[in-house]
Amino acid sequence: MCELLGMSANTPTDIRFSFTGLMQRGGATGPHRDGWGVAFYEGRGVRVFHEPAASANSEIAGVVQRLPIKSEIVISHIRQANVGSVCLVNTHPFIRELWGRYWTFAHNGQVPGFLGREDLYQPVGNTDSEALFCDLLNRIRAEHHPDTGETALVDTVVTLCGEYARQGVCNILLSNGDWLLTFCSSKLFCITRRAPFGPARLKDADVVVDFQQETTSRDVVSVIATEPLTTDEIWTPYHRGEWRLWRAGETVASGRIDLPRNEDSVSTDSSSKTH
Amino acid sequence: MCELLGMSANTPTDIRFSFTGLMQRGGATGPHRDGWGVAFYEGRGVRVFHEPAASANSEIAGVVQRLPIKSEIVISHIRQANVGSVCLVNTHPFIRELWGRYWTFAHNGQVPGFLGREDLYQPVGNTDSEALFCDLLNRIRAEHHPDTGETALVDTVVTLCGEYARQGVCNILLSNGDWLLTFCSSKLFCITRRAPFGPARLKDADVVVDFQQETTSRDVVSVIATEPLTTDEIWTPYHRGEWRLWRAGETVASGRIDLPRNEDSVSTDSSSKTH
Repeated sequence: MCELLGMSANTPTDIRFSFTGLMQRGGATGPHRDGWGVAFYEGRGVRVFHEPAASANSEIAGVVQRLPIKSEIVISHIRQANVGSVCLVNTHPFIRELWGRYWTFAHNGQVPGFLGREDLYQPVGNTDSEALFCDLLNRIRAEHHPDTGETALVDTVVTLCGEYARQGVCNILLSNGDWLLTFCSSKLFCITRRAPFGPARLKDADVVVDFQQETTSRDVVSVIATEPLTTDEIWTPYHRGEWRLWRAGETVASGRIDLPRNEDSVSTDSSSKTH
Repeated sequence: MCELLGMSANTPTDIRFSFTGLMQRGGATGPHRDGWGVAFYEGRGVRVFHEPAASANSEIAGVVQRLPIKSEIVISHIRQANVGSVCLVNTHPFIRELWGRYWTFAHNGQVPGFLGREDLYQPVGNTDSEALFCDLLNRIRAEHHPDTGETALVDTVVTLCGEYARQGVCNILLSNGDWLLTFCSSKLFCITRRAPFGPARLKDADVVVDFQQETTSRDVVSVIATEPLTTDEIWTPYHRGEWRLWRAGETVASGRIDLPRNEDSVSTDSSSKTH
């Protein structure tokens, strides 16, 4: 499988701390050694790094961990291949332009044999994940136009995520540079950090950060991940079928769609709480 | 203005030597300090690096100079902004998916006020260059289909390059991962290196490479650049209106279209020769 990491912040923020934790899981503390990638939005632009190799030993991943690349939205992914060979073209996040914006997508799970309709956006590689992304964009473009309101657009995206999740396992991070949509089919956690900030310790590396030193009292930064990245903070689990739309560090819309129970899912009995 | 660098090779080859020379011109030996970018094809995949800052001082550009990223097609660009602000979204090369392949594009020159038709591919930033690229892809898609033969496809691309060049200055590198199309409106040089290989010295840095140590006798590597990058090799100037299609290090098709004389053009009297 794979692991996902997303960030939404109300001010350009570097994700070095969380990214450092995730990168260890790509071959050191975790088995996701088949590739890694990250997309940093800077305004409408997006800076991407992809490598079809283990992140834990990657010189480029090392540089990305050192450099304070500041962004309001980040999507990252480490890959343990199941569908599609290990190569650059199958490395998430995927990116396409729609209506003059770059859309990026990363997927954790498996939708075996998924084939979207032949249409405008076509996969370049041979993963189910890229096929899902292309199908999603094709159907957004078919059903909407550039002036569609956010509610209608998100409604379509969530409906499609549910459709895909009924065919397999489908945890999704999707962004158009304005918002970050997160959808949980089996496993996803989030945490929102805001004043008063405190220290945090990574689970996968001997790193502690004191967010108070790194932030102002107005900063709001949310991190979304397949597994909690720190040992001393409370992460909120998503329910199966739960989606959240993030903007500027806050959940600006959310909901839950019915999905049949799945043995991969986390418990849906725990009450949802925001930290 | 800007500078272009392209490579076509018959075996995965690293471009560290040429790239090192070009990067110096981004703020050290040249004024192109407003951004740099490079796209490396690996099969159908493409690895891109973009930064809206001077390459000569860039830590990421430094890593790319050190890492032996091997590719059969490379497109790189350093930017001195004229149209469009200095930001990530305006940094070449631009990339889009068409017919299940990633197409990349870099432009040197200026086509003031260029506005393509509103269509499928839309610029995300506000450069004339990205508008040209989107127009090119929109018109390819409108006139052809995925099974169009290469000759017809290239004919359309060259016709469009000529149309753009009549509206301004338009030196172009374009690739779909299979071939590299190069078009000269005012200035472009190329060199093909094959056995017997010898040493070469960069113009912009105190670096000498002995290609014999780095290659096999079967390797063919061509480099295309706005200005020659070495001091001790013979680079062939393109004529104004000349285009060359490169595959596996060789020119596989070429031609020349009539353009009105332009004071930016290089002499068109020198005879073309391949080294």
